[in-house]
Amino acid sequence: MIRINENYLNLKASYLFSEIAKRVAAFQEKNPKTNVIKLGIGDVTRPLPRACIEAMHEAVDEMAVRSTFKGYGPEQGYAFLRDAIAENDYRSRGADISAEEIFISDGAKCDTANIQEIFASDIRVAIPDPVYPVYLDTNVMAGRAGSLLDGRYGNILYLESTRENGFVPELPSEKADLIYLCFPNNPTGAAITKDRLAQWVEYARENRALILYDAAYEAFIRDEALPRTIYEIPGAREVAIEFRSFSKTAGFTGTRCAFTVVPKDCAAFDASGARHLLHGLWNRRQTTKFNGVSYPVQKAARAVYTEEGKKEVASLIDYYLKNAGHIRSEMAGFGFECAGGDNSPYIWVHTRTDSWEFFDLLLEKAGVVCTPGAGFGRCGQRYVRISAFNDFESVREAMERIGQAL
Amino acid sequence: MIRINENYLNLKASYLFSEIAKRVAAFQEKNPKTNVIKLGIGDVTRPLPRACIEAMHEAVDEMAVRSTFKGYGPEQGYAFLRDAIAENDYRSRGADISAEEIFISDGAKCDTANIQEIFASDIRVAIPDPVYPVYLDTNVMAGRAGSLLDGRYGNILYLESTRENGFVPELPSEKADLIYLCFPNNPTGAAITKDRLAQWVEYARENRALILYDAAYEAFIRDEALPRTIYEIPGAREVAIEFRSFSKTAGFTGTRCAFTVVPKDCAAFDASGARHLLHGLWNRRQTTKFNGVSYPVQKAARAVYTEEGKKEVASLIDYYLKNAGHIRSEMAGFGFECAGGDNSPYIWVHTRTDSWEFFDLLLEKAGVVCTPGAGFGRCGQRYVRISAFNDFESVREAMERIGQAL
Repeated sequence: MIRINENYLNLKASYLFSEIAKRVAAFQEKNPKTNVIKLGIGDVTRPLPRACIEAMHEAVDEMAVRSTFKGYGPEQGYAFLRDAIAENDYRSRGADISAEEIFISDGAKCDTANIQEIFASDIRVAIPDPVYPVYLDTNVMAGRAGSLLDGRYGNILYLESTRENGFVPELPSEKADLIYLCFPNNPTGAAITKDRLAQWVEYARENRALILYDAAYEAFIRDEALPRTIYEIPGAREVAIEFRSFSKTAGFTGTRCAFTVVPKDCAAFDASGARHLLHGLWNRRQTTKFNGVSYPVQKAARAVYTEEGKKEVASLIDYYLKNAGHIRSEMAGFGFECAGGDNSPYIWVHTRTDSWEFFDLLLEKAGVVCTPGAGFGRCGQRYVRISAFNDFESVREAMERIGQAL
Repeated sequence: MIRINENYLNLKASYLFSEIAKRVAAFQEKNPKTNVIKLGIGDVTRPLPRACIEAMHEAVDEMAVRSTFKGYGPEQGYAFLRDAIAENDYRSRGADISAEEIFISDGAKCDTANIQEIFASDIRVAIPDPVYPVYLDTNVMAGRAGSLLDGRYGNILYLESTRENGFVPELPSEKADLIYLCFPNNPTGAAITKDRLAQWVEYARENRALILYDAAYEAFIRDEALPRTIYEIPGAREVAIEFRSFSKTAGFTGTRCAFTVVPKDCAAFDASGARHLLHGLWNRRQTTKFNGVSYPVQKAARAVYTEEGKKEVASLIDYYLKNAGHIRSEMAGFGFECAGGDNSPYIWVHTRTDSWEFFDLLLEKAGVVCTPGAGFGRCGQRYVRISAFNDFESVREAMERIGQAL
């Protein structure tokens, strides 16, 4: 008899964005004339940089001609892209990462979801709260989470991000084997300093733990003192895997390209204590289960690192950061404590009331959609996330409407 | 202590294509003037259809403009593509499949690799021999295979494809829960009749088993009596998931688009015997671990179903089938028994000698690269696979050289 993976039955219903969509649809039906402004989902709205468009057109033309046509590419990605990443995102910042350590993929969601496959099923996993739900759900699916009680899984070590710790969790008091960190953070927008990140690296080294570092929002960092990559921290090469994406930098959410860095010094152990390099394990996973990213997409991503591409991406990020700054200052002006928005496209607003109630208030009184913090975990209660991904005009209008509503 | 998934240590070394590359490189170094003709790897060589190129250019232009820019798309794929597939690949052939049952992905390799995640880890898996290595390796990684003895895994039920059974395996004598089938087959090129496929469907229904049906090569079927989809068989909707790809039909190996059909009648069970629909499980898997296929790529795939696209794809397939027919008739003329090549781009040649020896012979005497059958499993010993994916001129020259060498 064919049987299912029963860990799936242990997943919480994935209601957050569908519940939002339902409430927005109901509101729109009652108020057909209201132009609802969406500052909820973290999806970009500005077009792709010109340099990427041109590179993609050229690549499509190559696919039309026998002599330049590309069939299967390397599962790890083309050298032209891996080289550009190693040089521009790492070596130019003093982080010692080589092209061979970079694995191109079709999304950071896929990579942060799939990475847990290469680890044992009975390790102890530490996951932030609030959190991007993928880290938690994929560990539930793999049977690492234990049973659900009061909204929390028994075997997961929750790393709480609160006002009290500035939304950067403390080192765990219990032993963790696999630690998910995300900075600048989704959903709180908080950034981590080099000192605090160095403490995590030290913890991992002392406890033979591994850090999965999601840096999908690093391009939004404007404070030069903050680390853009975990490999700016000495010793991180042995204990950290980093995830990056072109989604939020160059607007690739619908174009799909990302990458994962697995340094060749990074290891994990078998039950007998023998050391195994994770680079080889991840390479085996990817060559067995993945077949590379579309050639025109990789060419488009490569264009991000041209002089023109860099300028255009910088201007895209500036655009969204201007939105973020406006949201934060307006919300603060309305009397709300806010985190994020300075080195991040997300503003984490302390609502002081139930986050779904506040969501309903903004929707019904202002026609503005945000994301209730409760959807990201227990510590998200009494918060909402406001996203800066929209046109400035819409953001300004949203803030005006919220001001009038409150 | 961070520990690895030790099932990875149970994988066989992935030497096949790297060993081929090593031998080809060594030969080329000794014979720098020889133009080595590659009929090994199953990668297409002809450019993308004009209709796909045009659609992709248009989509890239949409990504350059604010009003037509696309961010995150549906994880299951855009309706424009799912609708076209349901209509053209299924309903027009009398197979009752709806657009909602189709999940767009970036490759059939990914889907055939990932699908096993939704099943229990202690089910009995039946896998063909010879076989596309992904089915086996992904089950080894998930801990379903048992230990390796004499080149075979103890918990796997091997479905042998041999000259005696016309390369279509018999129904298993032991109970199987999850059954991988691939027709037209990679590597043997064999096709399955409706009657034989109906026996498998009946077996699955009687034993509450599930069939994973890889139909990546269905476009090569020219015999109208053969099934193009498993859903032409009555009752298959309850017991079969089907995988398809644009790779070998429209030349998308480097462009990346494929799909998986999970009918809403298809179920599996939990330990208590309760029935769970696989459509919901796969949807949860995909929405958690995948973020959709690049928009321009989906537009290109959609163009396969336009009148112009259909003609161009038919002509691509004709082109490769002409190659395949030539390879088969020539190899048969040289005295070799052959399977495949009529409804498939692969010709499975009975070499009567060790398959690596025959590989070396073709390489060294004729400068032609094929794939040693032993790389696909024990039953591939004394066979090689010759692929029709190359220019006709190269195929003809390869056959002339082989004729002279033998």
